Order: sequence, then C-alpha cells, then structure tokens
Amino acid sequence: MSTREADAAALISDFHAMSTFGVTPGGGVDRQAATEADGETRSWFMGWLQGQGFRVEVDAIGNIFGFLDLVPGAAYVLFGSHLDSQPLAGRYDGAYGVLAAAHAASRARRDLDAAGIRPKYNIAVVDWFNEEGSRFKPSMMGSAVFTGRLDLEVALGTTDPAGITVRDALDAISGRGSFTDLDVAAYGEIHVEQGRGLEDAGIPIGVVASTWCAYKYEIVVHGEQSHTGSTMMKDRRDALLAASKMVVALFDLTSEFEEEVLHTSVGQLFVLPNSPVTVAREVRFLADLRARESGILIEAFAKLTEKIAVIEQQTGTRIEIASSSIWESGPFLESGLALIESASAELGYPSLRVLTVAGHDATNLKEGVPTVLVFVPSVEGISHNEREFTHDADLIAGAEVFTTVVTRMAQGALDA
Amino acid sequence: MSTREADAAALISDFHAMSTFGVTPGGGVDRQAATEADGETRSWFMGWLQGQGFRVEVDAIGNIFGFLDLVPGAAYVLFGSHLDSQPLAGRYDGAYGVLAAAHAASRARRDLDAAGIRPKYNIAVVDWFNEEGSRFKPSMMGSAVFTGRLDLEVALGTTDPAGITVRDALDAISGRGSFTDLDVAAYGEIHVEQGRGLEDAGIPIGVVASTWCAYKYEIVVHGEQSHTGSTMMKDRRDALLAASKMVVALFDLTSEFEEEVLHTSVGQLFVLPNSPVTVAREVRFLADLRARESGILIEAFAKLTEKIAVIEQQTGTRIEIASSSIWESGPFLESGLALIESASAELGYPSLRVLTVAGHDATNLKEGVPTVLVFVPSVEGISHNEREFTHDADLIAGAEVFTTVVTRMAQGALDA
Repeated sequence: MSTREADAAALISDFHAMSTFGVTPGGGVDRQAATEADGETRSWFMGWLQGQGFRVEVDAIGNIFGFLDLVPGAAYVLFGSHLDSQPLAGRYDGAYGVLAAAHAASRARRDLDAAGIRPKYNIAVVDWFNEEGSRFKPSMMGSAVFTGRLDLEVALGTTDPAGITVRDALDAISGRGSFTDLDVAAYGEIHVEQGRGLEDAGIPIGVVASTWCAYKYEIVVHGEQSHTGSTMMKDRRDALLAASKMVVALFDLTSEFEEEVLHTSVGQLFVLPNSPVTVAREVRFLADLRARESGILIEAFAKLTEKIAVIEQQTGTRIEIASSSIWESGPFLESGLALIESASAELGYPSLRVLTVAGHDATNLKEGVPTVLVFVPSVEGISHNEREFTHDADLIAGAEVFTTVVTRMAQGALDA
Repeated sequence: MSTREADAAALISDFHAMSTFGVTPGGGVDRQAATEADGETRSWFMGWLQGQGFRVEVDAIGNIFGFLDLVPGAAYVLFGSHLDSQPLAGRYDGAYGVLAAAHAASRARRDLDAAGIRPKYNIAVVDWFNEEGSRFKPSMMGSAVFTGRLDLEVALGTTDPAGITVRDALDAISGRGSFTDLDVAAYGEIHVEQGRGLEDAGIPIGVVASTWCAYKYEIVVHGEQSHTGSTMMKDRRDALLAASKMVVALFDLTSEFEEEVLHTSVGQLFVLPNSPVTVAREVRFLADLRARESGILIEAFAKLTEKIAVIEQQTGTRIEIASSSIWESGPFLESGLALIESASAELGYPSLRVLTVAGHDATNLKEGVPTVLVFVPSVEGISHNEREFTHDADLIAGAEVFTTVVTRMAQGALDA
C-alpha cells in the first residue's frame, strides 16, 4: 500500500469511528453543542490528537486546540471546523472538516520532516465550540468568542430552551479550559458544500471565493391567551396566527426579488402556552435572511417591516424584534484562492470557484487573518439532514488538497 | 350570621384555600392533569370531603368521587366538574364547579335532614380527571372513560409531549384507584361561562340549553429537513411553512361563513427538529373547529380538504390527518332547564338560556343520563388565562341555585 493509499484508508477509518458518537436510527448523528454526544466526540478527538503527538489545550469557551510545535516561538497557522451538529443531522457537516484538518496537519508535519524543511509557522488544529447554534444561539459561538466578536461572559451565560447555560452545559462534559493567547498567522477550513454546485458540475474541489450576508432577527409575537372554543373570533389576539402569517410573509418576500437572490427561513418556533385548546399568548422565532449583497437584505428588511405593521393590525398582536445578528458578506483573499487552485491542479483534481450561503467559522476568522475555505461535494446538496452524504473519494481528495494547503501555509504561502 | 351568610362565607373561604395550589405569579393557577399541583389540589379536596363526612373513592382513570349515602341501595345523583387546569390559567375554570358541587351536596344533605325528607337518590360529587387535555389528549378524558366513550387502557397509555404516560403520571401523584360500578341516575354541573353572554346581559345564572359541536383533527405535516441558508428556495419542502399556511387557512375559513358561525383555532404546534438554521422536517398540530350545527363543520372540513391539497402542492409537503375527535351538539333536557329556572326564580336571581361553545364533562354525561349545566358570569369572558375572574356574588348565587338543583334532583326531579 502506498503512503497515499494508507493516508486515505486512515482518514476513512477514523471518520467511521468518529461517526459512531451520537449516531441516530436514520444513519446520521445528533450531537448538539455540549450534549453528552458532543462530549464523547470531543473526548475521542482529544485522544486522537494526543495519540498523534499533538499538544492539546482547551479554552474558556470550550474550543479544543491541538498543537504541533515545530518552530519554537513562531506563530501558528490554524486549521479546523466544528464537531457539534444540528439535531438529527448528517455525519459530515463540520466533523469531516475537523478530522481532515487534523489528518492534513499530521501529514504536513511528516512531509515537511521527510523533506528536511523547517516551516515558518507552527501548525494547530481546532474544534470550534457550538458552530451550529441550534441549542445555544448564536451559531459560530466558539470562533466568535475567540476572535473577540462575542463577549466570553455573554456566551457562557446564554441558555438553551430548557434554561441551561453554556457554562453549566460545558461543565457537565468537562468542556471548559483555561488556554488563552494564541498567535494565529492564518486560518484554513475544509467543509462539505451544503449545496449542489460542485456535484452538478462534477468537480471535487470547491474554492470558496466569497460568503453571502446573513441577517438574523429574533422575533417575539405578543398576543392574549384565551379559550379556543368560546372566544369570539373577532375578540382573539392570536400570537400563533400572527406568527404563521409572518412565516408565510417571510417566504413570500423571496418572490419580490429575482429568483434565488434572497433566501429566507424560519426553522424554530416556540409557542406559549402551547395547549391545543388555548389561543397562544406568545410565539418566539428566528427569521433568517440571506443574500449575496447587504443591499438586498436592507431592502428585504424594509419590506418585512411594512408586512409586520399589516399583520399586527390584522391580528391585534404586537410583533417585537427582540434582537438581531448581522454577518456581512465578503470576498476571500485572492492569494488563498490561487493556493487552493494550484494544490488541486498539482494533485490532478479539477476545482471550481464557488460561493457559500451557509455561515462557517471561517467567516469569523477571515475578518482578522488570511483565511481559506475549501469545499468538497455533497450529494444532492442535502444538509442538516441524516441523509447528508459525501463519497469517500471526495473526502479523500479534499484531505489531500488540504494537506498541500496546510504544508504551504506553514511555509508562509499567505504572508502579505 | 344567617345560615345563608355562613354558607356563602364558607364557599369563598374554601375557594381561596383551594386557589393556593399551583398558584402562578400572574394570579392564576397552573395545574395540568396529574402534575404535582394537580395532585396537591386533589389531596386537599379529598381531605375536605372526608372532613365533611363524604365517603371518598377513586377509580382507575383517577376520577375522585365523594359519596353521601342517604338511601341504602339507591342510585346516585352525581355533581361535579374538574380540578385540573390549562397551563397559566385562571382559578375558576372547573375548580369552582367541583367546590360548588361539594358545598351544594353538603348543604342539600343538611337541608333535607332538617326538613325530615328522605330523598329518592343518594348524592355524589366528582372531580373528573384531565378535562383540559392540554397535557394528555383528548380533553374530557376522565368522564369519557367513565361513560365508556374512551377505552381505559388507551387512556392510561396516552403520553404527554415528554413521553410520560397517563398511567405513570397518575401513579406519581398516587392518583389511580380501583373503584368501579357507580349507578348514576342523573348528572349536574356548574361552571364559569367562558364567554360574555351573561356579563353583557347582567344576569347571574346561565341555563345551558345546548352545546356546540366540536370537530378536532390532529394534523401532521411531512416536509424534508435541510439547511436554511444553503438550500435553494425552490428545493425546499418546508413543513413549518406548510403548517403556517394551514394556521392561516383555518382562520380564513371562518370568514367563508356568517360572522361567528364557525370558530377555528390552532393553539399547539410541535416543530421537528426545531432548530433556527434547519428547515423543519415535520410539524404536528391540532385543528379545532366548532359550530352550532354539524352541517357547518362538515362543510368547513370539505373546504379545508381543498385548501390542504393546494398547500401540499405549493410547498412540496404531505399533510396528513392523523386522527379526529368528534363531539356532536345537542340540546339539554327541557325539564332540567325548567328546574334551574325555577330554582333561580325562587332565590330571586334572574336567569338566561345560553349555549356553550366550550366542551364540558356534562357533554359526555348528557349522552347517557338526564343532565343539567349551570353557568355563572365571567368578567369579559376571559378564559384559559390567569386574568379569568368571577365576582364572589356570582360564585355565591351559583352555589345557592345549584344547592336547590341538587336537593330537587336527589328527590327525583329529573326522573322521566
């Protein structure tokens, strides 16, 4: 077996081992942030890192780092993604990226050593805590705290729907550490595409050229609780009716723009008191609006505001925008795109420049340091679903390209 | 203090004592079926019955009976309502009726004894288990099992949203007994109106002449789970969007009939997986349709079926009607109406014939035995809300009228 074959076999074997944590009957995984299943996956990953000779550290928001200290005193090039998942999700989203980064880092160390090259930077890998944001909002929490975008204490105090804080949930899986002060020279991430672009084009490597903007609004509808049977229709102030009109209005908003220019969705909704014979007093939900340009989102939000006024008037409710989170779009560094393209070409893999609509930890990192984001195909683009699937050949190709990316970035390929 | 004044004071004092169980910050109560708060209220009530010389029994579905055995071997006239509540509900709904029935029964025994009258029937009072149906569906569970409308094992196996069965929940409050075989000659219930009719008319006593029909459908929307950001709008099969369109369609259905002829509502909705960044795979909800005549509901359901087909087509989802529960309407016995009216007139209280839109345990009982249902006013008709309120004077008037009703029914007033 060649080294290349052995590397591929080790990656797939480790991926299967990792996919047993939080496994679901539908063949996916369910390991929301700081759950027992997330904790098991994290423990397995830390064990893997230690077994491969990485130095392991955990920071105060539960990000796990593995260090290969090759150049005393130098900064680190950092590579990673997230091990947490959505509920009833697929095995690839995030987890493939963490494992591929770890394998790529380990191979890069071996290859540099074999070639007698002393790199410019040390190499580190990372599992960012709570990228998904399904249990604790917002998403991309670990990388947001790491980059200073989100306050540590605010993040630790955030509660899940059961009222459990991030602090307590992390402590329950022994997930908080005290590591601080990492000097990062550049960041790289590899991820499954979560769209059909690469599969439709028959291309194994996606070179992410820019991200969409995402505007997210936490909305609270205030109605009045009453009896479903005896309350006259005209006397009702039904928070669930108003929320339903909002869900429909958000969907209809997309048809006021050119096709697929605006994405909107509501995936989570909490009803109070949620009784079958009681008109709802309050409904909370998150409205998620995404577009390539912020101008579209500003226009969409203005239209939404008009719709809110109409729905309030129709239903006798009050609709409050309790908070908002804004991620602006932006291009990735041209030298990073060229690096991925040349690495792909050298290994014989075609590549294609793509956009990402989904957010990634790379979105937080790219604001501060040179950052690359590589995609591999996902069959039918199925994402946040147990049926998510990527062929082994694409997982292997991605890790090979990423190994070259890691090796070159450790040598300063993205230095200005 | 006259006997009448002492009776009134005892009723209000006991009502205040009872209203401390499951008290909420908003001044209401929260004692859903077989919760700890329901268990505390039940224990208090059994203690009260024993203190007043009632013989207490509990049946296999948790209905609590208090017996005044006045005529060995005779059948019982039965009076009651329910002690359980909706979440974040008012103090009066059900609980007033149980307490008023118990006080009326106790006063009737005293008055019959003082008058040297040996009644035809024994007197019993009852707390029907789980009338509200907010935790365990369907509503009116205890009276449905008692009357043979619902199978005991099916009821005991029913689960709440957390997966806890009625059997286990009742056992946790020591709520199941073994009492069986009660020979019921007639049934009476007193309840707050849950509407504005009596208050608007300024009348303290409502004589319920008939019930509305209620058709309830448990609906499951099947979509496909996917990523909210990256999934193209045209590829989505969004179960929450389809459910929202259903909620709006059900509301709009009412405007296809004359004003207030049809009531519809959705008060409870469960979303899977309920994550902010995931298109919902499944939504479950209960559609509640009520009207005076079943013809209206049959027509409404036909229109709804057409709307379902359109929504399925618009959203790429499948909408399943998983089950239905039908309560037909019907008049109450004319001799019962006359009994309430004469009792009110003798005590100097005006009365008014009204309808009930809300279901009551009396709805189940009236199919088998002569049944009366008395209403007292509710301020602004506010129901299933902590702000539910009835003036003490109306509580007192209702209990006085009901005492006469109990006394006369024990003497065979409703015999054919």
